[in-house]
Parts: sequence; C-alpha cells; structure tokens
Amino acid sequence: MAIKIIVAGPRGRMGKEAVHMIHSVTDFELMACLDHKNEGKKLSDLEDFQDNFNAPIYTDIEKCFSEQRADVFVDLTIPEVGYKHTKAALNHGVRPVVGTTGYTDEQLEELKQLANEKETGCIIAPNFAIGAVLMMKFAKMAAVYFPDVEIIEKHHDQKLDAPSGTAKKTAELIQETRNAKKQGHPNEEETIKGSRGGDFDGMRIHSMRLPGLVAHQEVVFGGAGQTLTIQHDSMNRASFMDGVKECVYQVMDLDKLIYGLENIL
Amino acid sequence: MAIKIIVAGPRGRMGKEAVHMIHSVTDFELMACLDHKNEGKKLSDLEDFQDNFNAPIYTDIEKCFSEQRADVFVDLTIPEVGYKHTKAALNHGVRPVVGTTGYTDEQLEELKQLANEKETGCIIAPNFAIGAVLMMKFAKMAAVYFPDVEIIEKHHDQKLDAPSGTAKKTAELIQETRNAKKQGHPNEEETIKGSRGGDFDGMRIHSMRLPGLVAHQEVVFGGAGQTLTIQHDSMNRASFMDGVKECVYQVMDLDKLIYGLENIL
Amino acid sequence: MAIKIIVAGPRGRMGKEAVHMIHSVTDFELMACLDHKNEGKKLSDLEDFQDNFNAPIYTDIEKCFSEQRADVFVDLTIPEVGYKHTKAALNHGVRPVVGTTGYTDEQLEELKQLANEKETGCIIAPNFAIGAVLMMKFAKMAAVYFPDVEIIEKHHDQKLDAPSGTAKKTAELIQETRNAKKQGHPNEEETIKGSRGGDFDGMRIHSMRLPGLVAHQEVVFGGAGQTLTIQHDSMNRASFMDGVKECVYQVMDLDKLIYGLENIL
Amino acid sequence: MAIKIIVAGPRGRMGKEAVHMIHSVTDFELMACLDHKNEGKKLSDLEDFQDNFNAPIYTDIEKCFSEQRADVFVDLTIPEVGYKHTKAALNHGVRPVVGTTGYTDEQLEELKQLANEKETGCIIAPNFAIGAVLMMKFAKMAAVYFPDVEIIEKHHDQKLDAPSGTAKKTAELIQETRNAKKQGHPNEEETIKGSRGGDFDGMRIHSMRLPGLVAHQEVVFGGAGQTLTIQHDSMNRASFMDGVKECVYQVMDLDKLIYGLENIL
Repeated sequence: MAIKIIVAGPRGRMGKEAVHMIHSVTDFELMACLDHKNEGKKLSDLEDFQDNFNAPIYTDIEKCFSEQRADVFVDLTIPEVGYKHTKAALNHGVRPVVGTTGYTDEQLEELKQLANEKETGCIIAPNFAIGAVLMMKFAKMAAVYFPDVEIIEKHHDQKLDAPSGTAKKTAELIQETRNAKKQGHPNEEETIKGSRGGDFDGMRIHSMRLPGLVAHQEVVFGGAGQTLTIQHDSMNRASFMDGVKECVYQVMDLDKLIYGLENIL
Repeated sequence: MAIKIIVAGPRGRMGKEAVHMIHSVTDFELMACLDHKNEGKKLSDLEDFQDNFNAPIYTDIEKCFSEQRADVFVDLTIPEVGYKHTKAALNHGVRPVVGTTGYTDEQLEELKQLANEKETGCIIAPNFAIGAVLMMKFAKMAAVYFPDVEIIEKHHDQKLDAPSGTAKKTAELIQETRNAKKQGHPNEEETIKGSRGGDFDGMRIHSMRLPGLVAHQEVVFGGAGQTLTIQHDSMNRASFMDGVKECVYQVMDLDKLIYGLENIL
Repeated sequence: MAIKIIVAGPRGRMGKEAVHMIHSVTDFELMACLDHKNEGKKLSDLEDFQDNFNAPIYTDIEKCFSEQRADVFVDLTIPEVGYKHTKAALNHGVRPVVGTTGYTDEQLEELKQLANEKETGCIIAPNFAIGAVLMMKFAKMAAVYFPDVEIIEKHHDQKLDAPSGTAKKTAELIQETRNAKKQGHPNEEETIKGSRGGDFDGMRIHSMRLPGLVAHQEVVFGGAGQTLTIQHDSMNRASFMDGVKECVYQVMDLDKLIYGLENIL
Repeated sequence: MAIKIIVAGPRGRMGKEAVHMIHSVTDFELMACLDHKNEGKKLSDLEDFQDNFNAPIYTDIEKCFSEQRADVFVDLTIPEVGYKHTKAALNHGVRPVVGTTGYTDEQLEELKQLANEKETGCIIAPNFAIGAVLMMKFAKMAAVYFPDVEIIEKHHDQKLDAPSGTAKKTAELIQETRNAKKQGHPNEEETIKGSRGGDFDGMRIHSMRLPGLVAHQEVVFGGAGQTLTIQHDSMNRASFMDGVKECVYQVMDLDKLIYGLENIL
C-alpha cells in the first residue's frame, strides 16, 4: 500500500521538486498540499504542474489533516511556519519530515517531547543531500584513527562567507571524536599570511572560490605513509530529493524525533 | 602499566618495523622475539637493531611463552608458521595479532573456536592499512544509498594483475549492501573495447598503471545531482604500523577472534 | 570602436546565449540576426529576448550582409547551413566565427582557399570550451616528455558512447608527439576483462558513467617518481561563450582560416 | 657517438643518482668526476658504486678538463662551488648543466655573457622535475584566458614554510600573463581567519600539511561553467633525473645560457 503524503509549500523551489518526486515514486501517494493561498484549488490549477497533479490545496492545516488521512507530512517551508506545522502534524499522528532549519533549542525540545508522547516518528533535517551527510559521518568516524585532518571546500565566487556551513559542521563533528592536537610543524611559518588556512581546534580549513565551481568539499586525513580523502561534489538541488525520499521511508518506522539525516543513515 | 608484547618474525620487512614501532610507544613493552634462528641472542646482536633493543630471541615457541609472560603476540611471518604460532599463543592465553593471510577456512574456523573456548582476544588482519580498510568500510556503507558506483584503482606499471586485490575486495563488500543493477545506459556502446572498464556485478572497475604511481584507489558513488568519492593513497608501508598498533590496543579488550580490521574500526 | 557582429541561429540554445553574451560585452555591437523565419521582426518581438534587444532579423543572408555592415559573423547553426553562410560571409568580407562541426574535407578546403583569397579571417571551432581545448593542447605538449599516459573521462550515465569524443581527440593529439609504446607491464593480466580500459596506440582510456557527473576528463602522465595531471570539469554550456568571445576578438586580426580553438590559444 | 660527461659532486644525494643515471643511458658516457677529495681514485673505490664504475676522480677542475675531453659538465654541488665550476667549464668549451640555485644576479649575468662569447650551451635549472616545470609553464599559459585561479599545495607536516617555493614561483609566473584582479566576492567575509588562504596579487594560495603527503600541487582555474586543473604529484627524487637527462641532450644544441627548465621544454 502506498505511503500517503501531504506537502507544505508546494510552490517553493524545494516543495515543487518534492511534489514531482512524490508523483514519480510508485510507493508514494500525494494526498493534499498546504499553501498560504489557493484554498480550494488543485495543484493542476497552478502554473508548473501538469493536468494529472490533482491533489487539493488547503490553507488551513487543521482542516487539511481532518479531511485527508496521511501517513507522512513533508514540510519545506520556513522555520516559523514549519514549527507550527510540525506540532499540528504530530498532534494529528501524521509523521513529519521537515527540511527547515533555524529552530530554537526550546522549539526542538518541545517537538521532541511531543513526538515521544505521541509515539510518532519525526525527522528534522537541515541538509537532505545524502552524499554530504555521509561525508560528514565518515569524517567523524575516520577522525578516531587519524587526528591529522584538513578540509578544503570549494564554491562559486558569489559565495559570501568562508568557510562554508558544511565545512564548519564537518569540523565540529570531527572534533567530537578526534584527539585534539595542533597540526603542522610547531615551528611552521607563513611567508604569505593565511596560506595555512583557518584554524579550527588545531585543524585547518581552506576555502576556494572560483567561477565554474558549484559546491564541493574534500576532507583529507593523513597518517604515516597514507592519506584518506572523503569528497562530496554537489552539482544541483536534485540531490536533496533522494534525501527526502529516504526520510519518508524511514520516518514510517520511527516512534520519536530524529534531528539530522546523519542519525538515520 | 605497559602492554607486554612478543613479536614473531623480527627480521622480516614488516617485523622489523613492528619491533621499532613497539619500542617507540611508551604504552608498549617488547618482552621477546620469536625467530627460526639466533636462539639465545638479543635483538641488539643482530644487524638493523640498536644497542638498547635488548629483547631476547627464542626459536622455541613453547619455551618463549613459558619464560616470558606477555599480553599480546604479534605475528608477521607466513601462513603455515602463523597458524601454528596463533594456536600456541591462544593455548597460552596470549592474545594474537596476526598479519598473515592465506589461511584455509578450516584453519580459521579452528582458531575461532579456540579463541572462544579460551575467551582470548585474537585479531587476524590481511590488511593493516587503516585508511584502506576505512575506505572499504565507508564504501560498503555508502552503497546502501548509492547503487551507482565505479572504482578506479591506480598503481605503478610493474604491477601484474588488474584489478588490484583491494579493488576486488571493495567491490565484494559493496555487493553485500548494494541493490544489484546493471549500470550505465542500457544502450551504451564501446567504440574502443574495454573503455568502460571491468564489469563486477554491474559496477565498473578501472585499473590505471603508470610509472610514478604507488598504490591509490578512488570509489566514486553517483546520485542525482551529486557524487561522493572515497579515496585512499598509500605511499609506503609505514601505513601498516598504525594498524598494528591499533590492533594491539583493541585485542586487549576482546574475548574472541575477529577477522579483518574493518570489524574493529 | 565596437566590433559589429551578425549572429545566425539566434533562437537555438547556443545562439541565444551568444546574443546575450554580445549584449553584455561593451566592445561588441549586435547589428542583426539571421534566422530561417521572422523576417522583418526584431529580436525583442520574440520570446526570450528583452525589450532592448532591437537587432533586426533577416531570413535572406545576401540582403542581411548588404544592408548591415558587420565585422564578424557568428554562426551557431548546423553544418549544411553553416557552410553556405560561411561562404557568403567570406565573399562579403565579414569574418566568420563558426561553431558547427561535420564539414567534409572538401568543404573545409574550399573555405580555406576562399579565406586566403579574400584575406579574411575565419575561425571554425568544433569545441568552444577554452578549458577543454587547453587541456588537449597541454596534453599534447606533455606527451613529448611523458610517453606513459592514461585518460579517464567521466560523464553522466545517459551518455551512449564510450570513450567520449574529447577523450579520443585528446588521444589523437597525444599520439602526434608521444613516442609510441605499449604501456603497462608486458606480462600484465586482467582477471576481470576490460579493467585495464580501452587501448589506443598503447595508451589506455577509461570511461566512467554515473548519475551526478556532468562532463569531466583527467589526463594523467607518469614518470619516474612523479605524475602530472591535467583535468577539465565542465558544468554547463556557459563555458562555450568565453570561447566565442575570444574568437570574435582574435578573428579581427586574422587573414586566413583557422580550424580548432587550439590553434589560436 | 655517446655524449661524454663529467659530473661534479658524485657523492652527494643528487650527484650519486646522476652518476647512476648516466651509466644506465647508452647514449651517455661518464668520463670523470670532480670531487673535493679522493684525487686519483676511481668511483668504484668509493662506497655506493659498483666495480664497473671506473671513472677517475679529480679534485682539480683545470687538470680534469685538460686530461678528459668532455661534451657536457653536470654540476650538482653548491652555489659558491657551482659558479666557479661553470665558469671553468665554459672556458674549456664544455657545456654545463647546473642544478644549483642561489646565484646572484651579477653571477648569472657574467655566466650568460661568457656562454655567449664562447658560443657554448649552458643550462642552469633550479628545478629538474619536468612535471613541476610543465605545471608552471601550463599555468602561465592558462592564466591568459582564466584570470581566476587558486593554488593549493600539499606537503608533509615536517615542512616549515608555507606556501612552498614552487607555489610562489607558480604564482609569479601566472602574474606575468594574468589580468590582475581581486578574486572572490567583493563582500566576502572570513568567519574563521585565514580560511580564504594567502593573497598573492589577488589570487589565493592554500597550503595543506599532513603526514602521509609528500609534495603535491594543484593549480585550479575557473571560468563560467568550467574549471581547468593542473596538478603535479612528486613521490621522490627519481623525478629529477629525467630532467637532468633531458638537459644533457638539449644543451648539446645550444650556444647560449638558458635559465630554468621551462625555457627549454
């Protein structure tokens, strides 16, 4: 029997892709969408969706959950909205798969308790790219054996911040298992300032910015006579949908809240 | 208190490095060596060892284990010898860490039962390069989510066989978790025969051979919009000693036989 | 003073990008477009072009060249049409920059003679990606010193042919300078057929096909104790426009036909 | 007929390898060696050389050149000595191939004039690794078309200075052809200081230091929709001898001084 799904935010960039993905998977059935307008219309009444996209659109979440029996609720909106949606879904016993980030610790804690109470699965994932999440997971595992590690992340030159959020998150995860040490030769000297990269707890992070790059990261571990490299290359957002799909399957078997794709892979 | 160690094969290439490694680790103490000659001498009497290498050399394993109380027995000899040594060590309650390969299934089974019976830890590892073993382990984990994968291994042009043993072993491990599929376009055509590489259960393996290369492997996973690459570069045999060291620590906490470094990392 | 340009094929994928590129370069001025329909209209009358794209559209090339004085004629159509266009342009003293491939040797020879006769510059380029062309050029140069070389090209898994056209072209260029040799160990053996890749004059070519890949190639040269790698990664067709731009500048200084971007870089 | 060669510094690390290389090339004949001791002995009288190494050893360069007619003089000593040797060789009409660095501008100028005057070929090369020199040469060529470039060099963690001499030299060569620009987004911000690397004329240089690395460098050029990477991996000093060999051949056809391998490749 198909997994019945409701999607919030169907006109957003991610939401639109999710709707199409759900339509393309035979195990999945799109029951309805939640939008802040277009009450009473069908998806096919909107631009970007073909005639056979006949899921009804609701603007009222309570009405939506009452009229449509669903197994999973996929939320690809924004934090303020996502928080309320997730609470409502849990209260209705519909398992949330949530892609929004930026929750406060209190909000997360509250949702966690609610999921436990209702014994209803819930996945909140700041990053749905399975490859990126595996890269971080493997990096954390490898750091147990290789305390010497450097990260080089490479992005297009329109990116404002350096290092990338993924690089920092990777370094934090590595920090949890790595024996802290100051890397490099104790007497090393930079003849050009900054060439040794940014220092994060003794490891080094390098940020490359060039036109033509999209979003790439290498985590390089070094030991006597060997190096181990874990690399993720992201070309476009298509990569996120595989993660959403995986979460829809896995949330069906959960009875509590999981934060981060790394904890289900 | 230091872990007390006996090494078999101290004059071999690997054994010699192991002896030096043990001397350099403050947690370790070299009690004795087992050799097929040089009975009654000390290591320092032999070429290649400095004056402070004063471990006695035995040719009789029973005598060695009787006279020298050890925690761990490191065997870096050859399969026929290694098998007998491992049995003797287990019988004496000394935990073996064995780097020899080529055991028969019967021999392995017998050693497994003996370790269980004696409740004595034992590690047999065909490959001590932690980086290579982690690469294989991560590849097996990633294949759950990415059934599309190709392996490219790169070695010096004096290597006779293609693909490498590590590439085959990696493919076998991937096979255990990957949903089998024939990769590439169903109608793809080679205009130069062999360009798509070797076929292993629908995945492809490529072997590069060039002077200047040492021993390298990339495992590349592809999904919609992303790739994940796990790469190991081996420069020399120094990499093996980190694996031996790790095993010595871990065997202390085991009460059974473990085959393969991947099962303790 | 701006370089005055006429574009043929403005509604095609490449032509459309060329029109936009020309509009964005202050040194360039778009005089007119040649199309097989829409006579008398302006670009801005068509979908995909904004109001300020006011170049007139012609369907008759003679009329176009008579009414519009241009320095350069950019043709991004198809071979049959491109050939006629190029001839007409040369006859009118307008320098052609042509991106179509598939000319017969006779056609190329005829255009070459015409360009000489008219002392009018002309560039015909099967590949406008400057990075790919430089990769091939460098590979040819390096092969003088490194006769041991392997090519690994990586494309999405919808590609039908292996190896890629670029890989073959690279191998042919390398062949021109490389001392021919059969690479690898003379006694090497494939335990999985095809793992050593395709053989081209003793070099090896490997073709990787995975979802998530776009278009990538590595040319790896090996010598005693070192390797030299030249790698091109292509993400999308934006790369071609830098090549068209370069050609527009360079054709202004030519008085003959040049075939292949590699001969002007 | 074989090229007749005299080697200065036969007991040094590089000199010893050169002597062995010359013995292994059928086109080459080792006539004599210049040393600061061992006058009157043969190479085979010294450690490290086998019985068939019967070249005589001289300590006086004048006597050496008078008694031994040679075509090429290979100097792998140190700057002060190399300078005197090179002058003497040129005066005797023997073509110098010199691997020492650190000459003053005045010394170089003087040697240049002497080579011109004597119409005698001379090559002075700070780096004999052909792959590294080609990498620099290609980087300089590519920078004409790709002003956006970053260098990442990777060395073992015993290296004291960052960035490496090769990285700086590469950046200087790129600077000669690149349109100077400040790379990256004008408003980019480092949330961890140094993560964007060292700034050299608006390009960025990153230095990775890890155990297990030897000596590696990537030069990455980015343009719209594409990147071009030139990478050199050096495993050991064997790479230098191919460069010395190439120089011996090429100096035979020169009648002036050439500084830097890049100018003869």
